[in-house]
Amino acid sequence: MASIQDIGLSAAINLMSAFAFLFAFAMLRLQPVNDRVYFPKWYLKGIRGSPTRSRGIMNRFVNLDWTTYVKFLNWMPAALQMPELELIEHAGLDSAVYIRIYLLGLKMFVPITLLAFGVLVPVNWTGETLENIDDLTFSNVDKLSISNVPPGSPRFWAHITMTYVFTIWTCYTLYMEYKTVAIMRLRHLAAESRRPDQLTVLVRNVPPDSDESVNEHVEHFFCVNHPDHYLCHQVVYNANDLAKLVAQRKAMQNWLTYYENKYERKPTDRPTTKTGYGGFWGTTVDAIDFYTSKMEVLAEKVSAEREKIMNDPKAIMPAAFVSFKSRWGTAVCAQTQQCHNPTIWLTEWAPEPRDVFWDNLAIPYVELSIRRLLTTVALFFLIFCFMIPIAFVQSLANLEGIQKVLSFLKPVIEMKTVKSVIQGFLPGIALKIFLIILPTILMTMSQIEGYTSLSYLDRRSAEKSFWFIIVNVFLGSIITGTAFQQLKSFLEQPPTEIPKTVGVSIPMKATIFITYIMVDGWAGIAAEILRVVPLVVFHLKNTFLVKTEQDRQQAMDPGHLDFATSEPRIQFYFLLGLVYAAVAPILLPFIIVFFAFSYVVFRHQVINVYDQKYESGARYWPDVHRRLIICLIISQLLMMGLLSTKKLAKVTALLLPQLILTFWFNRYCAGRFESAFSKFPLQEAMVKDTLEKATEPNLNLKEYLKDAYVHPVFKGKDFDRPRVVDEEESNPLVPTRRTSQVTSRYNSEASSSTTATPVANKNTGSPGSM
Amino acid sequence: MASIQDIGLSAAINLMSAFAFLFAFAMLRLQPVNDRVYFPKWYLKGIRGSPTRSRGIMNRFVNLDWTTYVKFLNWMPAALQMPELELIEHAGLDSAVYIRIYLLGLKMFVPITLLAFGVLVPVNWTGETLENIDDLTFSNVDKLSISNVPPGSPRFWAHITMTYVFTIWTCYTLYMEYKTVAIMRLRHLAAESRRPDQLTVLVRNVPPDSDESVNEHVEHFFCVNHPDHYLCHQVVYNANDLAKLVAQRKAMQNWLTYYENKYERKPTDRPTTKTGYGGFWGTTVDAIDFYTSKMEVLAEKVSAEREKIMNDPKAIMPAAFVSFKSRWGTAVCAQTQQCHNPTIWLTEWAPEPRDVFWDNLAIPYVELSIRRLLTTVALFFLIFCFMIPIAFVQSLANLEGIQKVLSFLKPVIEMKTVKSVIQGFLPGIALKIFLIILPTILMTMSQIEGYTSLSYLDRRSAEKSFWFIIVNVFLGSIITGTAFQQLKSFLEQPPTEIPKTVGVSIPMKATIFITYIMVDGWAGIAAEILRVVPLVVFHLKNTFLVKTEQDRQQAMDPGHLDFATSEPRIQFYFLLGLVYAAVAPILLPFIIVFFAFSYVVFRHQVINVYDQKYESGARYWPDVHRRLIICLIISQLLMMGLLSTKKLAKVTALLLPQLILTFWFNRYCAGRFESAFSKFPLQEAMVKDTLEKATEPNLNLKEYLKDAYVHPVFKGKDFDRPRVVDEEESNPLVPTRRTSQVTSRYNSEASSSTTATPVANKNTGSPGSM
Repeated sequence: MASIQDIGLSAAINLMSAFAFLFAFAMLRLQPVNDRVYFPKWYLKGIRGSPTRSRGIMNRFVNLDWTTYVKFLNWMPAALQMPELELIEHAGLDSAVYIRIYLLGLKMFVPITLLAFGVLVPVNWTGETLENIDDLTFSNVDKLSISNVPPGSPRFWAHITMTYVFTIWTCYTLYMEYKTVAIMRLRHLAAESRRPDQLTVLVRNVPPDSDESVNEHVEHFFCVNHPDHYLCHQVVYNANDLAKLVAQRKAMQNWLTYYENKYERKPTDRPTTKTGYGGFWGTTVDAIDFYTSKMEVLAEKVSAEREKIMNDPKAIMPAAFVSFKSRWGTAVCAQTQQCHNPTIWLTEWAPEPRDVFWDNLAIPYVELSIRRLLTTVALFFLIFCFMIPIAFVQSLANLEGIQKVLSFLKPVIEMKTVKSVIQGFLPGIALKIFLIILPTILMTMSQIEGYTSLSYLDRRSAEKSFWFIIVNVFLGSIITGTAFQQLKSFLEQPPTEIPKTVGVSIPMKATIFITYIMVDGWAGIAAEILRVVPLVVFHLKNTFLVKTEQDRQQAMDPGHLDFATSEPRIQFYFLLGLVYAAVAPILLPFIIVFFAFSYVVFRHQVINVYDQKYESGARYWPDVHRRLIICLIISQLLMMGLLSTKKLAKVTALLLPQLILTFWFNRYCAGRFESAFSKFPLQEAMVKDTLEKATEPNLNLKEYLKDAYVHPVFKGKDFDRPRVVDEEESNPLVPTRRTSQVTSRYNSEASSSTTATPVANKNTGSPGSM
Repeated sequence: MASIQDIGLSAAINLMSAFAFLFAFAMLRLQPVNDRVYFPKWYLKGIRGSPTRSRGIMNRFVNLDWTTYVKFLNWMPAALQMPELELIEHAGLDSAVYIRIYLLGLKMFVPITLLAFGVLVPVNWTGETLENIDDLTFSNVDKLSISNVPPGSPRFWAHITMTYVFTIWTCYTLYMEYKTVAIMRLRHLAAESRRPDQLTVLVRNVPPDSDESVNEHVEHFFCVNHPDHYLCHQVVYNANDLAKLVAQRKAMQNWLTYYENKYERKPTDRPTTKTGYGGFWGTTVDAIDFYTSKMEVLAEKVSAEREKIMNDPKAIMPAAFVSFKSRWGTAVCAQTQQCHNPTIWLTEWAPEPRDVFWDNLAIPYVELSIRRLLTTVALFFLIFCFMIPIAFVQSLANLEGIQKVLSFLKPVIEMKTVKSVIQGFLPGIALKIFLIILPTILMTMSQIEGYTSLSYLDRRSAEKSFWFIIVNVFLGSIITGTAFQQLKSFLEQPPTEIPKTVGVSIPMKATIFITYIMVDGWAGIAAEILRVVPLVVFHLKNTFLVKTEQDRQQAMDPGHLDFATSEPRIQFYFLLGLVYAAVAPILLPFIIVFFAFSYVVFRHQVINVYDQKYESGARYWPDVHRRLIICLIISQLLMMGLLSTKKLAKVTALLLPQLILTFWFNRYCAGRFESAFSKFPLQEAMVKDTLEKATEPNLNLKEYLKDAYVHPVFKGKDFDRPRVVDEEESNPLVPTRRTSQVTSRYNSEASSSTTATPVANKNTGSPGSM
């Protein structure tokens, strides 16, 4: 067991690295040359522009105003200042609600920590069990945990009572938060301006018809069955080949620009390249001519392919985006069953155009069903076989184990510093490495499952990731860590004894998780704000590829809040907090620091950096809520397992009602709030329709919706990225008065030398989406 | 273990009693005086009338045509003759599909039995394990079971393969049946004539409004949000008090009729009664005057209460039946969410008027949620505490146990006949008694849960009953039966070892279940057809209460298929069949006899006797299917438990994919078919609307729907029973040509002395409902 000193050293190291990251960030962000890395959001919004040429060259790259360096933590209060309503308008509801999860963590755990330290720590500390056992090494950390209470002691009543108090408080905060988010979403939906997805339904599995094309079939079906509401539709083309060609052209374009830039800077030396793969072999040719001709060939191919797709009936997939005259008609079509066969003519709300995952629109029902089965089985194996390598690395955390196996290492390990580093860092880092390669696998699995929108894919990946973390990180750390001592006895028990075994091991594992929190939750979050990778990539691109102001705009990589990976990570902290609240309260302050620090960091990132790929209107909240309930239930089960080993088998039954009530609470909340996140009530639809009819009686909706749901490769020049369709002209992208205030505040804070040159940018949707 | 001889004796007894019942039935049903007991359906349909006065008195009561007695099993082929389409028209889709469950049992188990006897029985019989163990008493029955195969033997491959074959066959039949029933339902819905519930939606949880009454609030809400479709609505009155008064009046009316009849038959002696409770004490008065005056008082009270309800705004419950101009509008309203708060303005398809459970229409959402929680907990305790008395009675089945405890009984028990009787009968009867008192409890619980239609109540009760049977009858019989031998070892195992323990015990329990099948499934079904209770009640009523032809009509108690109790009972046989298919195939023929016999009996009952209270259009099939899948999964789990104790732990893993595929199959079927049973597709709605508009352009729908959903106590004279609203006039209740054929066939078969006098009867709905 690690001692207080070990933890202290680890904390010091992590705090220092966190501060180092923060200081580096503070230095880098003040340099105008990095402005597009640390404030891309403002550029995308068009509020901030490139440094004007009028200033000195030095000033354009380095900030020479020394006073700004002194206040290097200044961004923190700045990040907290923007009020929530403005934040929603500025960054979208998705982001605003996402950072509320951290706030929820604070709301939940600050009172719990106070209570736990006020009640449970004294009860544990005076338990005096560990001191009476001779052959056990223990530290002061363990004396604060439930391990220090003697089996069968009446002191456990304190723990049981506190478990109930914690559960009630958790449920209360969860309920209030669900309510708030639901209201925020409804208000958001009610306030947002007209968008294509409000009036559009995605229809999948259009049945084949021998007499009609898909196009005609869809039109006839909806003309007949929604005669008063059907407006128009857009079929979906299978543009996968075209998308590949476009991606190739994009790569060529990059090379061409690179060589053009090179030539421009050094006009004497015309650049050359080789014709072989990657430019490493083959005959040497003039690079600019080579790529220009290649571009021409590709352009022809692309237009030929486009032509082919538009004219070949086989390129039309059995899916369509059907638009209606009113939101009421749309709500009706999305929520009802169209045909007696529930596997054809499937309707659902269309995702917003940016959010569509085009590859998955045309999967037949049976195939979809089989795909889900296979992915589920694969996920099971992924979760349970990933454990094997993790278990090995984890076991290193147990010094006694290493010493036994590799006795020649003994002198090295026994050095105090090495010991502390190994115990403090290794387990956390081992976990972290495994977690980095995971998201891609999980996202691919979700894509195979066949979901039709990016937001849905993110949600499903988050769900997979969550279970992965629970089994591998949480249970894995607890069980295999003790495996060196307990493996034998463990194999002899029936597999269902696991809850009990896990419960028993929990208090012993507090220190592992504390170091994990510090590595991942403190230093990791601080690293997040530094944005090393985007920083390097931007400067590389800026040097070699950027010619025009627009190129520079595209070279920015604002990134986005990655819900699929970061939400399950928060859930893990919630899980740790809930599990350890009654067992080893010493863990709680570390978690609170994580939540508070993350809240500030992500608020800053959301305001200044991230550019969300889509806006789902906090559609993910039911998932967040449900997973929090799962964490709560796991904590209750483990508490029962733990207590039943403390000669308190009968008392444990007292915790059963808690479990049942938590299940019921979950169902109640789902019934009360969930539909606000999946359905669009007719009343609201009617209100918006009426309003629109009154304010814009002559609107040409058909024209408005005409190209809304065209595959991105068919659009304009910028092929590689779905563009949001223009908002109605009357709706300015950025409200004038308030925006200028925001702009001035953030500009003055960052560097007074950059001037705001609004750049009209089509990619910024107004905040909010269905 | 019971031997072949025990089973043979038991079979003989049960067969004899079954034949006795059948013979008694054959005798009784030929007597004209019992005609209304055994052919009430035809009377209700108006096809059969009372014996005419023209015949001799003797002929009117006793059938003197001796030739009819000879062919006493004649009803069997007659019951099978009616084609299915005619049966649906005659008895409704609910009944027609219900008897298909028995047919499904035959389709499923006949091939399984053939395979099991062809493959598994030889494999088991030649296993020769039991013969080699000296200290074990075994019978030939056990030699046919899996117990006779030595542990670790490669013979188990036969069982594993067969398990897969059985599973695939079961799933195939289930799939085909689901498909057939779904098509039948859709055809039925498409064919049925206009009915109020096609155009009506039940709206619950109308929120209170300070400015408007419920009536106005509902009207305004739907006028605004369904402006093109809303037609009219009907508020729901709280008529519970009125219903009580009406019931009282009905009782008084019975007494009055009784005394009037008495006086009529013996005009010299005017009957008297006493004024105290039940007529047992108090002053003696003239009975007819007494009850006439009481009736007058009650009639006044009733009309006062009616007046009060109609005028008191507080008597209006926050619920309403809202009708629409078209089926399309109704389908839309029923399937969509109306308000952003999903706990108010809840809409669902209205049950047909007969099907409404009026007491539960006004339960608030929170209360509903709490009620369901409490019922679930109560159900849990009911299921698990009911086991204690059952365990005691069950243990009697174990003769060796009794002999040990009550050694003085030894000489009695050792008598061969007594032994056989105890072993053959007791366990079955003990189970049966417990099952008789159960349905009322379960139905009350479902009512507390707050479902709004009788059909839903029936379905929920069936679900409860099913779990009760699985835990108490099935697991209870298996575990506690072995408890005398295994109790000690059992307590020392962790509770989750149960599947394994149960699996091991299964082969030993085959004989218990065989006797159960014979008592409950053979003799019990034969008793069903005899209808002893309705027979006695009818003759009592006929003697004392009947004055007019209409009274006699009301004295009939046709009964109905009680889905809530009889469906779970069938499920139990399916479970037994699936569990024992690979373990002890000897059980299968008994089950096949049950299914075949029940099919004939219930087909006869459905044709001649039962009068369904409502018609749900086989709405229950998804439940039936899901429970069959549960039975299949239980059988697979137990097979795995059983095999893992036969030194085949690794081979057992081979059965895992089967389990996963079964789960997947369930999900697939649910996605493929379930919505046909809960939603009404817009396409179908549109077709019916268009058809109606074309055929009846001048229909006054408002008039048609005006009184459709009025609480039954507000209707006409016949207060105690919900009446179906008249069908459209153009639709004759009974098609002329075909009916007369049917009539003549059934009349001539039953007794040629009764003549058909069509009696117009409002209670018979045409077959079919949403």
